[in-house]
Amino acid sequence: MTMPMRRLPRSPVVEFGDNILRGIGQVMLQNNPISGLLFLAGLFVSSWQAGVYALFGTAVATATARLLGAPAASVSSGLYGFNGALTGIGLATFLHHDLTLLAYVAIATMSVTVVTAAIQDSIGAKGYPLTGPFIVTTWIFIGGVYAFAGVLNAALDSPHLPKSPPSVHVPLGLGDIVTTVLKGVAQVMLQENVWTGALFLTGIAVGSRITAAAALIGSIVALALAWALGARPDLIRAGIYGFNAVLTAMALGGVFFLLHPRIIVVTVIAVCFSTILYGSLAAILRPMGLPALTAPFVITVWLCLLARASLPRLGELSPTAPGTPEENLRTTRPSASNQT
Amino acid sequence: MTMPMRRLPRSPVVEFGDNILRGIGQVMLQNNPISGLLFLAGLFVSSWQAGVYALFGTAVATATARLLGAPAASVSSGLYGFNGALTGIGLATFLHHDLTLLAYVAIATMSVTVVTAAIQDSIGAKGYPLTGPFIVTTWIFIGGVYAFAGVLNAALDSPHLPKSPPSVHVPLGLGDIVTTVLKGVAQVMLQENVWTGALFLTGIAVGSRITAAAALIGSIVALALAWALGARPDLIRAGIYGFNAVLTAMALGGVFFLLHPRIIVVTVIAVCFSTILYGSLAAILRPMGLPALTAPFVITVWLCLLARASLPRLGELSPTAPGTPEENLRTTRPSASNQT
Amino acid sequence: MTMPMRRLPRSPVVEFGDNILRGIGQVMLQNNPISGLLFLAGLFVSSWQAGVYALFGTAVATATARLLGAPAASVSSGLYGFNGALTGIGLATFLHHDLTLLAYVAIATMSVTVVTAAIQDSIGAKGYPLTGPFIVTTWIFIGGVYAFAGVLNAALDSPHLPKSPPSVHVPLGLGDIVTTVLKGVAQVMLQENVWTGALFLTGIAVGSRITAAAALIGSIVALALAWALGARPDLIRAGIYGFNAVLTAMALGGVFFLLHPRIIVVTVIAVCFSTILYGSLAAILRPMGLPALTAPFVITVWLCLLARASLPRLGELSPTAPGTPEENLRTTRPSASNQT
Repeated sequence: MTMPMRRLPRSPVVEFGDNILRGIGQVMLQNNPISGLLFLAGLFVSSWQAGVYALFGTAVATATARLLGAPAASVSSGLYGFNGALTGIGLATFLHHDLTLLAYVAIATMSVTVVTAAIQDSIGAKGYPLTGPFIVTTWIFIGGVYAFAGVLNAALDSPHLPKSPPSVHVPLGLGDIVTTVLKGVAQVMLQENVWTGALFLTGIAVGSRITAAAALIGSIVALALAWALGARPDLIRAGIYGFNAVLTAMALGGVFFLLHPRIIVVTVIAVCFSTILYGSLAAILRPMGLPALTAPFVITVWLCLLARASLPRLGELSPTAPGTPEENLRTTRPSASNQT
Repeated sequence: MTMPMRRLPRSPVVEFGDNILRGIGQVMLQNNPISGLLFLAGLFVSSWQAGVYALFGTAVATATARLLGAPAASVSSGLYGFNGALTGIGLATFLHHDLTLLAYVAIATMSVTVVTAAIQDSIGAKGYPLTGPFIVTTWIFIGGVYAFAGVLNAALDSPHLPKSPPSVHVPLGLGDIVTTVLKGVAQVMLQENVWTGALFLTGIAVGSRITAAAALIGSIVALALAWALGARPDLIRAGIYGFNAVLTAMALGGVFFLLHPRIIVVTVIAVCFSTILYGSLAAILRPMGLPALTAPFVITVWLCLLARASLPRLGELSPTAPGTPEENLRTTRPSASNQT
Repeated sequence: MTMPMRRLPRSPVVEFGDNILRGIGQVMLQNNPISGLLFLAGLFVSSWQAGVYALFGTAVATATARLLGAPAASVSSGLYGFNGALTGIGLATFLHHDLTLLAYVAIATMSVTVVTAAIQDSIGAKGYPLTGPFIVTTWIFIGGVYAFAGVLNAALDSPHLPKSPPSVHVPLGLGDIVTTVLKGVAQVMLQENVWTGALFLTGIAVGSRITAAAALIGSIVALALAWALGARPDLIRAGIYGFNAVLTAMALGGVFFLLHPRIIVVTVIAVCFSTILYGSLAAILRPMGLPALTAPFVITVWLCLLARASLPRLGELSPTAPGTPEENLRTTRPSASNQT
C-alpha cells in the first residue's frame, strides 16, 4: 500500500529510467514515474533546454549516487535524483547552453549528490534535506559565474543593493488570477508557463489529489498575500511569489504532517511566512548576486519539523513520510484501512 | 529559594499578565514581574510605540506557545515571551505604526515562537536560544520591507557597502560618559534614552545587584574600547556600542557561569570581543540592509558555552542557570547557605 | 611509529617552542617541528611581518589554550596553534603593522582558541575544525576594520558588487606555470612568493612525500581549471586559485582518507569543486568586504567527511587521521608493517 507502483524484476536500463522519472517526480514530492513523466512534459512545453538539463542532472546525480555506494532504496525512490534535476534546470535557466555549460553542470550535479548525503547526515535520520542540496549547489555554481564569466554565458540580473521600490498597487484582473496561480506551480521548476503549471498540477494529482489541492491553495494564498502587501506586480504575475508557497503547502499539508484541521491552520500561516520570507531573502541575497530559489520553503518546513518537539500541538508527524497524504491517513487509521 | 516570587493559585488573566511581565523581564535575564514592569515603564518613557508593541509581541508569542502546547514551565517563566517582546519593539523601531504593521508584527510574533522552539531543539537541552529567535525573525521581516515597501512604511538606513570612515577621534566629555553608559543599557531594547536606561538598570537590580553591576561594567568597557578604536562618535554617544556588551557581561558574569575571579577576566575579554564583533557585523550586514541587533551577544555567549567542554578552565557552569548570580552562588555553597 | 619525532623530557621553554613550531607545521597538516621551521623560513623570505605575526599568533593561541585547560595532547601537537598562526598572518596581510594592530591581533588570537574549541565541540569527536576557526575569527576582525578604520590601518580591496569581468583569455606561458604552481602553495599562508612556495613544499616533503606530491598536483589541477574557465589571469598568476586546491588535495589525498585509486579520482573532482567554490565565494563575499580565505577547502573537506556515511564508496577514513598518508597506509596493512 505504501508502494505507488508495483515493481517487477527488470533490466538495468528500465530500472535507471524509472529512477530518473521518480527523481523528477520527487521535485514535487511524488514517488512515481507517471508524475515524473508529466513533470518532464511540462518542462519541455516551456523550454527544451529545461527538459534536457533536468534529464541530464537527474542522470548524473543518480549515477554518482550509485557509483559511490548510496543505499539502493534511496536511489531507486529518486531521493538522490531530484536535487540533480533542479540543479540542472536552475543552471540552465541562469546560463546559456553550450558545451562549457554542459561540463559545468556535470561537475555541479556530481557535487549535488555529495551535498545531499552531507546534509542528510548532518540533520539525522528523522530530517529531510528537501531541496537544500539544490539550493547550496546552485548558489555555489551561480556565484562562480562572476569569476568565470569569460567562458560561462550568464543571463543573470545585475546584483544590486536592497532598495525600496515605489509604492505600486496595480490591480490584478480576474483573468490574471488563474494564470498567476498556475505559473506559481510552474515556477517550482523555474518555468513561467501556464501549460507547464497545468501539467505539473496533473502530475501531482496522479500521485495525490490532496497534495494537488494543497498546491493550488498555496498558490492562491501567496498571490493574495503578495498583492495585499504591495509586492511588484510583474513578479506576482510571473508566479515568483507562488512557488515557495506551493511547496510549503504540499509538504506541511499532509505529506510530513498528518492531515488534521489544526495543521491546515498552521499550514496557511506557514504559507504566509514562506511568502514573506521569499520577498525578504530575494532582497537580502541580491547584493551577492544570488537568487532565493526554494530556500524559503526549506527554512519554513525545517522550522516546523524542528519546533515540533517543544510545540507538540503544532501537528502530528506522518507515519510514512514522505508518502502521500492519502497513504498517511490510511496507515494511521488501521480499522478503516482494514475495511476497504 | 530559586523562585524569585511566591506563586499563589490565581485567575487565568492574572496568570497571563504575569507571563507577559516575566517575558519582558527575561529580555534582561530577569524572571520576575517587577523587573518586567520597570522595563515596560522604561519603554513607555522612551516611546509609546515601543511599549505597546512590546506588550503586543509578548502577548502574541506567549499565546501562540500555549496554543501549540509548549511546556507550561517555559511559558510561565517568560521564555517564549521575551523574543516576542524584542521582535515587536524591533519592527516598531524600523517601521512606522499603522494597521498593516500590526498585522505584519502579528505574523512575525507568531513565527518567533516556532523559531524559538526550533532553535531550542537544534541546540539541545543544555543550550539557550538567548535572543537568537528575535534576531532571525526580525531579519526576515525587515528584509521583507524591501519587497513590500509599497505597503510597509520603513524608517531604515539605506543599505550601503562597507566603507572605511574618515579618521575621527572626537573627544567625549565627562558628561557624555554617564549618558552614554545609560543609553548603552537602554539600547538592549533599541531605545536611546537616559531615563529608560536608568529604569532598566533599576529593574535589573530588583532581580540581582550583581547583574546590575555587570551591566554597568559592560557598558563602560564597551564605551572605552569603542572610543580607543576610533569608532564613530555619534554611534558611541547613542549607546550603539554598548548593548551587546551589557548583555554579554550580564550573561557570562554570574548567570550562565558561576561567579569567580577567572570568569571576570574571561567576561571582560568577551565583552571586548562582542564590541568588536558588533562593529564588524554592522558593517558586514549593511549591504543586505540588515542591522546587527544582538547577534554579537548571542554569538559570543554561544562560543563560550560551546568551548567549555574542551577548555574547562574557562569557567564553571551555573547550577541553576539562567537563575540570578546570587542564587547560583547560594546553590553551589550549601554550607554557607545553611548558616544564613 | 605514529610519532614523527621522539620526545625527550625537556624544559617548559623548549616544550613551548616545540608547540609553536608544530602549530605552524599543522597549517599544512604536518605534526613536526622541522616542517614548522621550514614554513616559518618561507614566511620570513616573503615578509618579516608575516613571520613575526605567525609566531605571535601561534604563541598567544597556544598560551590561551594552556591557560584555559585544553587537553595537553591537543596543545602539544599544535592543534590550537595553527589557527592562531593563520589569524596572525591574515590580519597582518590585510592591515599595516603598528602597536594597535598588535593589540588587535592579541584579542583575535585569544579568541581563535575559544572559536577552535567551540567548533570542535559542535562537530563532535570525529570531525576536524581544520582552518574553520581562522576563517571565522579573521572575518570578524576584518569586518571590524570598517568600523574602526580611524585607528586600524587597512590595505583591503574596496568592497564591490559581483560583476562579470570582460572575457579575457590571456595565454599563460610555460614559464608562468612553474611560478604559478609554487605561488599556489605559498598562498596557503597568504604569500605570493616562489621561494616561499618552494620552502613550504620542502617542509611538507619532510613530513610526507605523498602529501607534497598531492600539494603539487592540486596546484596544477587548479591552475588548469581556472585557466580553462577563463578566470582573471592576474589572479591565476598570483596563485590565488591554487591554495584551496592545494589544501584540499593534501587533506583528501591520504591524510583524512586512506590512499586508494578511487579516492584519487574523488580528490581530483573535489579539487575542481574547491577551485570553482573559491571563485564563487570570493565574488559572493566581496560586497561584505570579506575575502574567501580557505573557506572553500574547509567546506569541500567537511562535505566529503559528512557524506561518507551515506556514500561509503567515496573512500575509507584513515585510521590515524590526521597522520601522514604513509603512517595511515602502514597502520592499515599490519602484515607489511610487521615485516619492516
